[in-house]
Amino acid sequence: MRSAADYLGSLQDGRTVYYRGERVRDITSHPVLKIPVQHSARLFSLRDTDSLRKELVVTDRQLGDISGFFLIPTSSSDLLYRSKIIALSTRASGGVFNITQVIGSDALFALSIVAKRMAKESAERVQSLWRRAAKEDLALAVAQTDVKGDRSKRPHEQRERDMYLRVVERRSDGIVVRGAKAHTTQSITSNEIVVLPSRSLTAADRDYAVAFSVPANAKGLKLIVRPMLEIEGLPTQKDAPVSSRDAEAESLTIFDDVFVPADRVFLDGDWKLAGELANLFALYHRFTAISYRPVTCDLYIGAARLAAKSNGITEKSHVKDALLDMVLYREYMEMAATAACHASRLDSISGVAIPNELYTNLGKLNSNAAFHEFISRLVDIAGGLVSTLPGSEDLDNKEESEYILKYLEGSEETLGDRYRIMRLVRELVGGPFTGYMLGWMTHAEGSVQASKIAMLRAYDFTGAEELAVRAAGIGAVNEREGKTKRGQADRAKSE
Amino acid sequence: MRSAADYLGSLQDGRTVYYRGERVRDITSHPVLKIPVQHSARLFSLRDTDSLRKELVVTDRQLGDISGFFLIPTSSSDLLYRSKIIALSTRASGGVFNITQVIGSDALFALSIVAKRMAKESAERVQSLWRRAAKEDLALAVAQTDVKGDRSKRPHEQRERDMYLRVVERRSDGIVVRGAKAHTTQSITSNEIVVLPSRSLTAADRDYAVAFSVPANAKGLKLIVRPMLEIEGLPTQKDAPVSSRDAEAESLTIFDDVFVPADRVFLDGDWKLAGELANLFALYHRFTAISYRPVTCDLYIGAARLAAKSNGITEKSHVKDALLDMVLYREYMEMAATAACHASRLDSISGVAIPNELYTNLGKLNSNAAFHEFISRLVDIAGGLVSTLPGSEDLDNKEESEYILKYLEGSEETLGDRYRIMRLVRELVGGPFTGYMLGWMTHAEGSVQASKIAMLRAYDFTGAEELAVRAAGIGAVNEREGKTKRGQADRAKSE
Amino acid sequence: MRSAADYLGSLQDGRTVYYRGERVRDITSHPVLKIPVQHSARLFSLRDTDSLRKELVVTDRQLGDISGFFLIPTSSSDLLYRSKIIALSTRASGGVFNITQVIGSDALFALSIVAKRMAKESAERVQSLWRRAAKEDLALAVAQTDVKGDRSKRPHEQRERDMYLRVVERRSDGIVVRGAKAHTTQSITSNEIVVLPSRSLTAADRDYAVAFSVPANAKGLKLIVRPMLEIEGLPTQKDAPVSSRDAEAESLTIFDDVFVPADRVFLDGDWKLAGELANLFALYHRFTAISYRPVTCDLYIGAARLAAKSNGITEKSHVKDALLDMVLYREYMEMAATAACHASRLDSISGVAIPNELYTNLGKLNSNAAFHEFISRLVDIAGGLVSTLPGSEDLDNKEESEYILKYLEGSEETLGDRYRIMRLVRELVGGPFTGYMLGWMTHAEGSVQASKIAMLRAYDFTGAEELAVRAAGIGAVNEREGKTKRGQADRAKSE
Amino acid sequence: MRSAADYLGSLQDGRTVYYRGERVRDITSHPVLKIPVQHSARLFSLRDTDSLRKELVVTDRQLGDISGFFLIPTSSSDLLYRSKIIALSTRASGGVFNITQVIGSDALFALSIVAKRMAKESAERVQSLWRRAAKEDLALAVAQTDVKGDRSKRPHEQRERDMYLRVVERRSDGIVVRGAKAHTTQSITSNEIVVLPSRSLTAADRDYAVAFSVPANAKGLKLIVRPMLEIEGLPTQKDAPVSSRDAEAESLTIFDDVFVPADRVFLDGDWKLAGELANLFALYHRFTAISYRPVTCDLYIGAARLAAKSNGITEKSHVKDALLDMVLYREYMEMAATAACHASRLDSISGVAIPNELYTNLGKLNSNAAFHEFISRLVDIAGGLVSTLPGSEDLDNKEESEYILKYLEGSEETLGDRYRIMRLVRELVGGPFTGYMLGWMTHAEGSVQASKIAMLRAYDFTGAEELAVRAAGIGAVNEREGKTKRGQADRAKSE
Repeated sequence: MRSAADYLGSLQDGRTVYYRGERVRDITSHPVLKIPVQHSARLFSLRDTDSLRKELVVTDRQLGDISGFFLIPTSSSDLLYRSKIIALSTRASGGVFNITQVIGSDALFALSIVAKRMAKESAERVQSLWRRAAKEDLALAVAQTDVKGDRSKRPHEQRERDMYLRVVERRSDGIVVRGAKAHTTQSITSNEIVVLPSRSLTAADRDYAVAFSVPANAKGLKLIVRPMLEIEGLPTQKDAPVSSRDAEAESLTIFDDVFVPADRVFLDGDWKLAGELANLFALYHRFTAISYRPVTCDLYIGAARLAAKSNGITEKSHVKDALLDMVLYREYMEMAATAACHASRLDSISGVAIPNELYTNLGKLNSNAAFHEFISRLVDIAGGLVSTLPGSEDLDNKEESEYILKYLEGSEETLGDRYRIMRLVRELVGGPFTGYMLGWMTHAEGSVQASKIAMLRAYDFTGAEELAVRAAGIGAVNEREGKTKRGQADRAKSE
Repeated sequence: MRSAADYLGSLQDGRTVYYRGERVRDITSHPVLKIPVQHSARLFSLRDTDSLRKELVVTDRQLGDISGFFLIPTSSSDLLYRSKIIALSTRASGGVFNITQVIGSDALFALSIVAKRMAKESAERVQSLWRRAAKEDLALAVAQTDVKGDRSKRPHEQRERDMYLRVVERRSDGIVVRGAKAHTTQSITSNEIVVLPSRSLTAADRDYAVAFSVPANAKGLKLIVRPMLEIEGLPTQKDAPVSSRDAEAESLTIFDDVFVPADRVFLDGDWKLAGELANLFALYHRFTAISYRPVTCDLYIGAARLAAKSNGITEKSHVKDALLDMVLYREYMEMAATAACHASRLDSISGVAIPNELYTNLGKLNSNAAFHEFISRLVDIAGGLVSTLPGSEDLDNKEESEYILKYLEGSEETLGDRYRIMRLVRELVGGPFTGYMLGWMTHAEGSVQASKIAMLRAYDFTGAEELAVRAAGIGAVNEREGKTKRGQADRAKSE
Repeated sequence: MRSAADYLGSLQDGRTVYYRGERVRDITSHPVLKIPVQHSARLFSLRDTDSLRKELVVTDRQLGDISGFFLIPTSSSDLLYRSKIIALSTRASGGVFNITQVIGSDALFALSIVAKRMAKESAERVQSLWRRAAKEDLALAVAQTDVKGDRSKRPHEQRERDMYLRVVERRSDGIVVRGAKAHTTQSITSNEIVVLPSRSLTAADRDYAVAFSVPANAKGLKLIVRPMLEIEGLPTQKDAPVSSRDAEAESLTIFDDVFVPADRVFLDGDWKLAGELANLFALYHRFTAISYRPVTCDLYIGAARLAAKSNGITEKSHVKDALLDMVLYREYMEMAATAACHASRLDSISGVAIPNELYTNLGKLNSNAAFHEFISRLVDIAGGLVSTLPGSEDLDNKEESEYILKYLEGSEETLGDRYRIMRLVRELVGGPFTGYMLGWMTHAEGSVQASKIAMLRAYDFTGAEELAVRAAGIGAVNEREGKTKRGQADRAKSE
Repeated sequence: MRSAADYLGSLQDGRTVYYRGERVRDITSHPVLKIPVQHSARLFSLRDTDSLRKELVVTDRQLGDISGFFLIPTSSSDLLYRSKIIALSTRASGGVFNITQVIGSDALFALSIVAKRMAKESAERVQSLWRRAAKEDLALAVAQTDVKGDRSKRPHEQRERDMYLRVVERRSDGIVVRGAKAHTTQSITSNEIVVLPSRSLTAADRDYAVAFSVPANAKGLKLIVRPMLEIEGLPTQKDAPVSSRDAEAESLTIFDDVFVPADRVFLDGDWKLAGELANLFALYHRFTAISYRPVTCDLYIGAARLAAKSNGITEKSHVKDALLDMVLYREYMEMAATAACHASRLDSISGVAIPNELYTNLGKLNSNAAFHEFISRLVDIAGGLVSTLPGSEDLDNKEESEYILKYLEGSEETLGDRYRIMRLVRELVGGPFTGYMLGWMTHAEGSVQASKIAMLRAYDFTGAEELAVRAAGIGAVNEREGKTKRGQADRAKSE
């Protein structure tokens, strides 16, 4: 298992990273990019505390001590453990999700299940990736979302054939891939990038049915990082108390004819498996989402409480209602995660535990669809100052600071702290972080619309129709097979 | 354990029941009241099927075979079992909750926990009630909600002192109580009525701090049943396919100086325990609610599917959205019940398992607050016919029936069935049942407003504030003790 | 102009009416149907008061005094006048819409506009209908909504060809029509029934492109009335204080090969005009809806205030919020009606004033989509008694009444009145009226979904796209013509 | 009337402005502050076009040509004109509100009405301010919102007495004031700042009952400008296509013992008028809000349409629903503005036209309460790229630009434009502008909660209660006087 220093060293490998129009040779010392780097490094340093080490490290029979994130779940308890350490590392990162070893393991679990339906050699390659990741304590990114072009068209129908990543050459020793993946979180701070298809495919799309893994410094791999507005978009980093400490970087990830050696190719051409792989990964990753997001919410809820106190309005009924709405949003997710663990199922072939699909999606749907409501409650409580608060530089100017400190002081309960409270609130709901998070929380880990369609398709209406058919006094309904069994069934299984 | 016939016999005991202005001597043969009677009897006859008997009967070490509803839960599994048989009996009752042995056992569990904090003799009386109920297989009603008078005033502040039920005389052999309880479900079909306080009390309210049990035919006890519009409010009972088979009757329950022998008095004057008892009962009863309501929802969801098919609109996106909204409403409750079982806690003194308070309340809040949304989706799908459908008598008249059958036929998918489908839908969302259910689902098992206040008061903001305080870079917050521990904590316990 | 007595006499003309499976020979003396009859008669008797006569009667240059409802609007002021008398007659009918001369005039206005695009003789027939209606002070019903069968299919695609009303024979002296119209309000209390197409049509549907008028006693016309649950579904009519005084009856209206003389046929085969006629009528009728519904809402809002007072909770913040929500729902409609009048446009050919389409639809959309929210607020305020209140017969029994009066009394503010208040509330949100109104307010005067699609299709995005195109710094957009001009444009016209 | 150059010259008067911790000597040449300066200057240069001059300039009998914003409204038409030029100047400013002469005239109208109830000399001072403003074509800011301290306390109860601006000295020739006002929009680009009380006051607060006007360069007046994140928080100004052209600056406005000569003091000590003045100004300013916001919305709606096109998803039903929601939000405001003009009333003493209070508040309530919903629809349509789009600097780097242009291209319909479309969308909902606007649209021009309370207090329930009282069959209600007359009444007045 690696120290944070070991990890940091591993990132200086010549990877191709661009930031704000410039090639960044060493991300660990870049004034902005070092923040996502340190954020990922934090995952490793957390284990320096004994109490956290006990939580974050598990012992594998063959490999010895490994990071808990790589524990392949085979029971409800394992899923509960996973949910707990995801929450714990998010809390230790100040409420900001720490994806470093999470998303990669989400992909590994999905691959492990699907691999058992593939050729034996593919299964071995997946097993080998897991072994390497766990043993070498790797940081793994996952590149899934294709850039898509015209979304009303399938991959092979696009005007430009590379709008979904595809195999452009098959050699005896491997494949060459071309395309681009969007929104790849922490690709720049990863050791290796796992690539998965982003949707179900048809026979005509077989060249797009590809899954593999490459090192972050692979030739032809280029990482174009988004401008990190949440860090740079404020007068000073003091004004970004959260993001100046913990933040994650997304890249547009370019595969400019990248060669992938055969032993790292998990899927190539078997288009029937693409959808299942994409969906299973999405399921694990949504489960991840409802595990970390409650902690992220705590940051906002805590800020709302502080703001209410500093405004002297904690006893107003509309403030209480607003806080309760925030709490309900948070707890919906945590409840869904709890239920998804307990009502999980074991994949019959691989023995891997899969979080309950219905509950995971319920939790995720609300999470994505209602985040804007959630933050609007904080805006309501905090007041207009979130848009008009002077900056830290004004506080540093003595001519101004006496006025600011005098006039922006609120109730006695938070005497001396209100400027800092409002500065935090501005970061959360009145600055560049706001826009970033609004997009993130709405779209990350799978869109609302896709989930809705999938849920309705998978839902088993048998019990409902039977009741209604009986009540109406009419003949039988004839739809039953192949549907996700809900509630009772799942619950029975989990007992 | 009793047969349905034994049970029916037990109801002919001279109890004082009024319906539509008349004293009903024998409710088992009354044209309307026999329906709630048969509904309760169904709970007993269900056990005639082997497969259901296996589910509904458990073996107690001392008492032998007893109804599963009387199993005092001491683990998450017991709570899951309880949730399952509540759902099962609701399904067997056509989607209508079967409260017959459920609400009484909810009260017993709450009393069992609180009793351990009382004098030993009270604990024994509770134990004795449980023993009698389980052994004699009793139907138990619970009368909790006081009529309240002016809701802005406490019991002793009311203009009229009897607006909350109270002890008016204390004798050596028992107490005399006076007052009225509202909305007592299936009091008329019960053997015994358990009476609980409806709120927390102060010292000035001590005469209102009373809990006891009386037989349904106790002297001075008068049951004024609501007009059962859902059964009577349609041209014929054919037009009420659900309610003409299964329905529950509420009464205004009058205690006109009823004598309660000492050995049936559980609480008298100990006002400090009134609130705890009221709240614990409410918690178990809310857990009951989120266990049966998903099945009730199935009736509506099934009807929505049939209506969509018969209208030929299953593929319209707004119809799919409406159906999904209905499913989400249902599954929110089932998910909450699942989570509430798994994240339950054991009362340290009594060893009784208590469903997770936060999750139970989350599920119940949404259930009460959004039922009107839920039914409005069915209204949307079904169309205006729910208000204007001809009645069954019109179908019986040959001059009319040919037109009705011809012109109200819809798509081929439900050929021949549409009138019956629409008749069911009219019962659900276009007739007297609608109004009844709207009130019921909004208010039964505890109000939204009370839950909100309680949740916010109990919620532990520590974790949230700590994150925000750290992010803002300010000093400590100092609130911590005595709060419901959420999420992580509960989950940990349940592992 | 007719007296109420004259009007009542005119209904005894042998029309074919069925109610609850029986042919009703004289609706004016039928115990249930006399209520919708008296409701319509009220429109005529209202004019017996001088002050109302002044409001409800206008003078036509040719015809002299006529009912104000037949005033063809040619200015914003005329539309305001129309909106006012619709509200006024609704208020005089206890909050229940009085459709008697409203819907017919809605149809007349639409026909008058479209007629100018037809053959001269059609225009004369429309003019002649208006003249007769105004001069003879007729009650007119409109039958528009076809029974539709499979809604995913066009008229000519239906398995059964009569699912939309159609011309089955063309004779020299007229046409023969066959089919059925659903939800025809107050057909049984009308003198004449105007029939309109319910949708836009294609050439293949030309036999369905038919509009005409027939007397209510036409041969082959059969009116099957819905069971009036709101009147009959309660123990006594005392329990239905609103509906036992004012109610409207819908029929399934059967045209069993009805002959229509040529001079009453307005449209036959000109399928291109069907959609325009249907839409214009719908627009006027939606304007009618947002004119009467605010008054209907007043009944609920008033009941909510009384209920809050009688429960002693007027000062609770959640009660205030609930009341405000109800007020916002009401005022949205009234505001839309106000704006629709002032931003109306004149049809360039006929000179008839047309309410602003966008504002009318905005008001109507919210009205239909949120009625369930509106009533749920009253349910919240009133409490569970709306489902469990004893009936009036219980009050008539002395054994029960003392208890009911004592225990259901609430706060002092409404001393002596609470039972009656709760009885009203039960009628509104806890009884058969509830289901009826839920369907009515959601579907009457046009569905939500149809409005949405129409609005989006008609909306002029030019101004919006121009701003965005300029801001983005890209080339022009090229969509402009044939769209409803919004806001500024309309407003300018109205100045 | 001034040219833009004249106006710009007038700003170089030594006013005390701080930005990001530094004193700015000349705001017209400051790299950031010149943007709000040019934005205000645009109001003057707009009149250089003949067609706009015709719209924006009116002729006063005494003063000759004056800016239309200073036209004191005395009819519905005047209010419609005002609404129109507010919209027009917002459109000419790219969708960004141009407050330059609007807020000041809002204050002037409120002062004009209240002045008639004051001493004659106060009325003359108001008249004189209007004359000067109109004649000299001034830019006027309004400072109203006090910093408030502990919001649960009245001004004189605050720990620190200056938390509401107050008179600290009264001299023969004027008064000296101390305090701070928050959120003063475009104070730095104004010639004069009008100061109003922010709430109703009691006798104990009389020193806070003060209204006056001062030049922007008054001694002791200090303007601390918020950091303009929307301009500075993106890699380059190219990335802020909207804000780099048009933006408004708010200041924390410090009155450090500023002397106000007597002839500019409008209110001093007459606490009874403070509330009325505050409320009337708020009403005019809310009317302003619902006049400009529809145009601001157009920018978002247009961007949503472009984004949908560029993603190839315009025909998806959830995209249509999202667009319709955006349209409904916009049109609600425009409809409210239209209705508020037509249903306006004339103040009986001053003859000034006052927009309908109920409709103005309805429009504003929804506007403030639902903006987060509005933007979330654009987030939904646009997709995750709003958070992860590369910056303009990346496009300038040839190594990256070929990939970005290739892979971020979407559907053919917007070929070549997608990057720019997404850049605009990022500015609107994924960057610093997002947070700023979220606070602004929620809080500017008056809070939701204050409006709600005011509306409920002012609402006349008489008509509603009368209907319900009559329906319930109970005695009279006795509340009637002093309430805002709604609907019918207002409408009658406006005819």
